[in-house]
Amino acid sequence: MRLKPIAVVRNGIRETPKDWDKVRSRLVFEKKYSEGLSKLGHFKHIWVIFGFHKMRHTVLKIHPRHDPEIPLVGVFASRSPTRPNKLGLTLVELVSVKGNIVSVKGLDAFDGSPVFDIKPYEDEIDY
Amino acid sequence: MRLKPIAVVRNGIRETPKDWDKVRSRLVFEKKYSEGLSKLGHFKHIWVIFGFHKMRHTVLKIHPRHDPEIPLVGVFASRSPTRPNKLGLTLVELVSVKGNIVSVKGLDAFDGSPVFDIKPYEDEIDY
Repeated sequence: MRLKPIAVVRNGIRETPKDWDKVRSRLVFEKKYSEGLSKLGHFKHIWVIFGFHKMRHTVLKIHPRHDPEIPLVGVFASRSPTRPNKLGLTLVELVSVKGNIVSVKGLDAFDGSPVFDIKPYEDEIDY
Repeated sequence: MRLKPIAVVRNGIRETPKDWDKVRSRLVFEKKYSEGLSKLGHFKHIWVIFGFHKMRHTVLKIHPRHDPEIPLVGVFASRSPTRPNKLGLTLVELVSVKGNIVSVKGLDAFDGSPVFDIKPYEDEIDY
C-alpha cells in the first residue's frame, strides 16, 4: 500500500533532544485536507502516525534504549524505528488547530517527517 | 512511502459483526519476521496498525457512527476508514504468540486485512 503524506512536521529539531515531551511541533497539512480537521479542536490528545523518513535499515532484534545491558527483544516488542515499515505512533497533546496547522506538544519526530494520519484519542470521543 | 504487509488477519469475518470486542483474530506473520516477535508475549495489549484494504474513497467530513442526526465532523476527528491513507489503529488484547502466529481479541478488521505494524502498549513497557 502506498501512503501519501497528509502533513509535514515543522519543529526545527534535527538531533535527538533531551526531552521530547517538551518539544512543540506544527503539523502543516496539505491545504486540500484542511476540511478534514473540522472539530479536531474538541480533543486534548491525538495519535500521530508518522514516518521515520531517515531510517533505511531493518533490525529484527534490538536492545531497548540502545542499552547493551538490557537483553535483546523483538522489534515488534519495542518502539524501535528499525521495523519493517518505518511507522511511528505517538500520543501527543493537542495545542491548537488553525486553518491547516495543527500544533502539538510531545511528538518525537524530526523536522521534515511526513505525517500519514492523525486520530482522536478514543477516551475523549463522546459522540 | 510504500508499506509491505508484515502479516495478514485471519478471523473469517466478512461482514460487520455485532460486537468487534469479542472477535478473535490470528495475525499470520511472514515467517521471515518471526524473530521480531521475540518477547512480545510479555504484553497483555498491543496496538495493531492495519489497512482498510477494501476502502477506496476518501470523504473529508463524515457523520460519526453513520448517524445523520450527529453533526458532521472532519475525518481526522473521527476513526472513519474514509481517510486519505487507509490505516486503522486498534488497541487489542494479546492472547498468545506462537511461532509466526499472534492471536488477539478485539481487532475490528475483516478477514484478509493486511497488517503493517504492531507496537507494545506503552503503559506495559517496563524495561
